[in-house]
Amino acid sequence: MADLVPADDRGFTLGDGLFETVLAVDGDMPRLAAHLARMAAGCAILGLPAPNARAIREAALQALGAASLMAGRAAVRLTYTAGSGGRGLDRPAALAPRLVATAAPSPKPLAPARLAVASIRRNDRSPASRLKTLAYLDNVLAREEARAAGADEAILLNTLDEVACAGAANLFWIEGKAMVTPALACGVLGGIMRASVLAAAPALDIEVVEVRAGLDRLLAADAVLLSNSLIGLRPVASIDGRAYDPWPKLAVIEASSFAVEL
Amino acid sequence: MADLVPADDRGFTLGDGLFETVLAVDGDMPRLAAHLARMAAGCAILGLPAPNARAIREAALQALGAASLMAGRAAVRLTYTAGSGGRGLDRPAALAPRLVATAAPSPKPLAPARLAVASIRRNDRSPASRLKTLAYLDNVLAREEARAAGADEAILLNTLDEVACAGAANLFWIEGKAMVTPALACGVLGGIMRASVLAAAPALDIEVVEVRAGLDRLLAADAVLLSNSLIGLRPVASIDGRAYDPWPKLAVIEASSFAVEL
Repeated sequence: MADLVPADDRGFTLGDGLFETVLAVDGDMPRLAAHLARMAAGCAILGLPAPNARAIREAALQALGAASLMAGRAAVRLTYTAGSGGRGLDRPAALAPRLVATAAPSPKPLAPARLAVASIRRNDRSPASRLKTLAYLDNVLAREEARAAGADEAILLNTLDEVACAGAANLFWIEGKAMVTPALACGVLGGIMRASVLAAAPALDIEVVEVRAGLDRLLAADAVLLSNSLIGLRPVASIDGRAYDPWPKLAVIEASSFAVEL
Repeated sequence: MADLVPADDRGFTLGDGLFETVLAVDGDMPRLAAHLARMAAGCAILGLPAPNARAIREAALQALGAASLMAGRAAVRLTYTAGSGGRGLDRPAALAPRLVATAAPSPKPLAPARLAVASIRRNDRSPASRLKTLAYLDNVLAREEARAAGADEAILLNTLDEVACAGAANLFWIEGKAMVTPALACGVLGGIMRASVLAAAPALDIEVVEVRAGLDRLLAADAVLLSNSLIGLRPVASIDGRAYDPWPKLAVIEASSFAVEL
């Protein structure tokens, strides 16, 4: 049975909160600290009290146990809201954040993605564009648009026509020997997997460049990849029907499964 | 006690849904039909099944009764979500929307508002900017910014530096004998009270103009007003400390209480 949340929770009424989706392997969450650090940074930006790392870890383990997912791979969703509030936008004087942890089977390795560029734009002019907030409707709508176009996932440009991200993943692309990814300033979530790639690249002798770039530059890439903390690096088969080599021989892709398992 | 919602509701997890805040007077909701029409139009844009008007009216009355608000003025909040869903952005194949109705005392007549221009921008490049969605975090953050600046409410510009709206109200301003309000294309919710003003103006011999205008034009106004369906028209005392006549002798303001009571 699903957990219940009061209908006056500001996460439900206004999208006032954050979430994380954490990979668990046999009850172990190797990147939990990174997720909690990102959530704490987001809370500071939103003006929410810092989450209690110990309480969150315990709630995550409890959710895994309740879902019988202490063995194998699972996805733990941590939702942290501004808590219950009265009518209107103003937060209550004393905020009492609410934490909800749930667990689900981890997604299976996915086939190369077919992408479609969404008409909806990422709001780089809001700090929420760089956070994993409960106000994720633009991402939902972009995904719906991509599905309606026969694709699996959306590419979002920002309001300046720069490439930002996918609906639920960061974007990387290959230019010769270099990897390229949109800068966070484009309205990009600082993905945990994205950070892993950036951190791992120098040791693999891969140059990774963060850029502000238009769609033309992405389309001219040799190969394209999606990244998120559950799926690792996922190759891209096409963008709006234009084909890309979904299995380029790249050290970084070899290394990515390693990075995900860390 | 607050109603409860399953934690897997997509309104809670992703902001995937809409809401309306409806004025009730002695259990009567004079503008309910307009609110329901707006919600239905929003559902069509978001790809959600159309809400059942009869069921919503019944739920609203039940909420008023449960809150002992069948006498006097009250605010009914109608929340309509994409319903429960699994992990991730994709909606389930069979959507089962969820309706939650709650009632609260109506806000008292408010003193003239002190406004502050928020740094956060309204995403006119998303259809959500013209809808009353559960992904309202940008509005919350704009209001927080205004409060931190010692103001009551925020003014939001869009990504093109055009004036859009306030955190929880539409904006009007006076230029000589004309009323001016941002066009919906600026990323503006089609407010119920806004529509009432536009509809009532000709009979009052008031010219109302919908514009795409920068902040300079608003700041040069003779007077400024906020509108929403619960408070009617609320005068503005200042924008970023610049004073405006909060009680201009304007037929439209005289008429506004009439419009609200209709």
